[in-house]
Amino acid sequence: MPLDAAACDRLDEAPGPWAAWRSRLAGGEPGTLYLDANSIGPMPVDVPQRLQALLDGGWRKARRRGWTALNWLDQPRALGAALAPLIGAAPDDVRVADSTSVNQYKLLRHALAAAAPRRVIVLEREVFPSNRYVAEGLAQAGLADLRFVNDAASGLAEALAPGDVAVVALSHVDYRSSTRLDMAALTAQAHAGGALALWDLSHSAGAVAVHLRHCEADLAVGCGYKYLCGGPGAPAFLYVHPRLQQAAWPAIAGWMGHADTFAFAAGYRPAPGPDRWLAGTPAVLANTAFEAAAAIWQDVDPAMLDARHRSLTDTLVQLLDEQCGGFGLALASPREHARRGGHVALRFEGAAPLAQALAEQGVVVSARRPDALRLGVHPLATTHADLWLAVQRLQRVLKDGTWQAPRFAGPAI
Amino acid sequence: MPLDAAACDRLDEAPGPWAAWRSRLAGGEPGTLYLDANSIGPMPVDVPQRLQALLDGGWRKARRRGWTALNWLDQPRALGAALAPLIGAAPDDVRVADSTSVNQYKLLRHALAAAAPRRVIVLEREVFPSNRYVAEGLAQAGLADLRFVNDAASGLAEALAPGDVAVVALSHVDYRSSTRLDMAALTAQAHAGGALALWDLSHSAGAVAVHLRHCEADLAVGCGYKYLCGGPGAPAFLYVHPRLQQAAWPAIAGWMGHADTFAFAAGYRPAPGPDRWLAGTPAVLANTAFEAAAAIWQDVDPAMLDARHRSLTDTLVQLLDEQCGGFGLALASPREHARRGGHVALRFEGAAPLAQALAEQGVVVSARRPDALRLGVHPLATTHADLWLAVQRLQRVLKDGTWQAPRFAGPAI
Repeated sequence: MPLDAAACDRLDEAPGPWAAWRSRLAGGEPGTLYLDANSIGPMPVDVPQRLQALLDGGWRKARRRGWTALNWLDQPRALGAALAPLIGAAPDDVRVADSTSVNQYKLLRHALAAAAPRRVIVLEREVFPSNRYVAEGLAQAGLADLRFVNDAASGLAEALAPGDVAVVALSHVDYRSSTRLDMAALTAQAHAGGALALWDLSHSAGAVAVHLRHCEADLAVGCGYKYLCGGPGAPAFLYVHPRLQQAAWPAIAGWMGHADTFAFAAGYRPAPGPDRWLAGTPAVLANTAFEAAAAIWQDVDPAMLDARHRSLTDTLVQLLDEQCGGFGLALASPREHARRGGHVALRFEGAAPLAQALAEQGVVVSARRPDALRLGVHPLATTHADLWLAVQRLQRVLKDGTWQAPRFAGPAI
Repeated sequence: MPLDAAACDRLDEAPGPWAAWRSRLAGGEPGTLYLDANSIGPMPVDVPQRLQALLDGGWRKARRRGWTALNWLDQPRALGAALAPLIGAAPDDVRVADSTSVNQYKLLRHALAAAAPRRVIVLEREVFPSNRYVAEGLAQAGLADLRFVNDAASGLAEALAPGDVAVVALSHVDYRSSTRLDMAALTAQAHAGGALALWDLSHSAGAVAVHLRHCEADLAVGCGYKYLCGGPGAPAFLYVHPRLQQAAWPAIAGWMGHADTFAFAAGYRPAPGPDRWLAGTPAVLANTAFEAAAAIWQDVDPAMLDARHRSLTDTLVQLLDEQCGGFGLALASPREHARRGGHVALRFEGAAPLAQALAEQGVVVSARRPDALRLGVHPLATTHADLWLAVQRLQRVLKDGTWQAPRFAGPAI
């Protein structure tokens, strides 16, 4: 039976503290539907108060005393501990710091050091460009060799066969199609080939279930400003399995990664745990905004989050099938939830102008070259009713047809 | 003639828009004197409004549209351009991104690439520890060799003699004594020895005159949260001389450093200018706070700033001489302003407990092992009258003597 608005409303009433959790996230412009949590997640309602307290009590009054009196130095660890359950990690194995690209660099270098003399990095050819660029930079500097596979699921065996692979660096979820890789199987395959597995969780953490420890993943990084709601350009996170935490010095050996930062010792001595991957001073302002989201995540059951995401995206897929089937859009994401990440993607030649036309109708989505239209679903913020309305508007735009100007929008993260 | 309170008041009335500039920076706790701009500079008064606008109009309402509609992607360049005059750089040669340590890493790697096959980094033995650690990390990874000198001014010639030095990495101002090195002379000496010069401006930018281009400096990094008033843990800056901007790929090749980020091209192609040293997504929240300070700096004449700093720190040195001469404190900083950086340092065995006792009397300063007491002077925020009061309180604490518990305070940046 086709879904209607009432059925979507009923799905929103499923048991669980959904209304309470949703109420901790701020709404946007009235009438606008935000399907862009894969770009920037919603703002926790208490971010303004937390920042105001930091500005007034911290920056203005405490000044340098804030480093200790206000625990600023502990933020990278405390934030990591708060996010750890969402990604199936132990609290002490995660840190929040720097950007995803910088963390990708640190952990690729760590993998290369730990797996020496192996020096091959295996990547999917169509991986998120920044991940590829970081690896290309290492190759350019003579620090690694690269090997590309079209598809990890089918191509990893051959890539591992020569026995020279240091690390397989995979996106858990593809940034265009939202295809989710089988972390347990591919990690096991990497290990069987003598390689480490580094996972980028940018498009899964905070949206769907992630089980780093259960999957025996070695290393992981991920974005703070998408589903995790850390704020525009928020610091990223990194994870290192305990068995690898002491394998080598960090590539970027900074004072915050020293075993005793404030001894100001003449020689670098890496901190025993993942603190060693902290390099410079913590980004206190950004971390303070991120703490608002971390406080929400600490109250959320990751299994419930995953179930909600499944209900929402299954609904979205069904609505797209039922209401937009005749307009030349193809579902780019897998139909099976276990193989799908945070967003639902459509394949459509005019994805970019369609995204622009949708924005004008109050539906914020994004497009990616060459033909991906991405609808980002946030399990805490998006409702089934939102999806009903968004698909109605999409259908109207498609019927209207006036959007078909041949424009691929400029920069859009 | 000894200085008195009235003389300090008269110095505050020197010609110039000092009151107007000072009014753009927020005061702290009533009665507290902040001599810690070398740790965290004061907050511009309009930071709260700017952040509120970002949270409400950007994060909450614009969401992903902010990347383009609100110019978030342009922040690293625009902030760099605003700071450039303070450090004697052309607007397009500076970028704001990442932390000082990460930028130090990037530019040391760049120097090594540009100067290959030379692979020696020369450092002062007592340089700020994080600078040393970053270099030690490179040596540990086999990417560089290190050579230490006790004192650049006297030891550089010998260090350069073997002809194998890629880069001389110096702090413009020593974090303990506040000794300022002669940038022009040492850069020329490095060049004569076939080496590049990388300067850390953390303790000079925003406090005293810096002339990177005039001095022919090759590379520079510096802290955003000290004199520059970017906020606790603010992003740092980096500078690359135009003649070196295309010398090599960046060590950390990320999407924001690509020549055409949003083409999502398969291969990395470095941006032609200093954008190539941007790696991950800009820290929008932190950058927005920093924009408040940048707006002030754009109105400040660097030569006037330097003159004011000279007047303030000359006054402080004289007051310390006159009022605290008999208590075993020695001036650790040079008496000549051209050889002195942002703060004034005293050498005193009980520096740490004395700093603590001063804090209890409402004077915020810092101590550094083994015996440095640092009084940070901000040319826009500190007044001569503040210095009079602070030295009065210091004299009282010294006379009182009850502070002499043998405690070296814990972490304090």
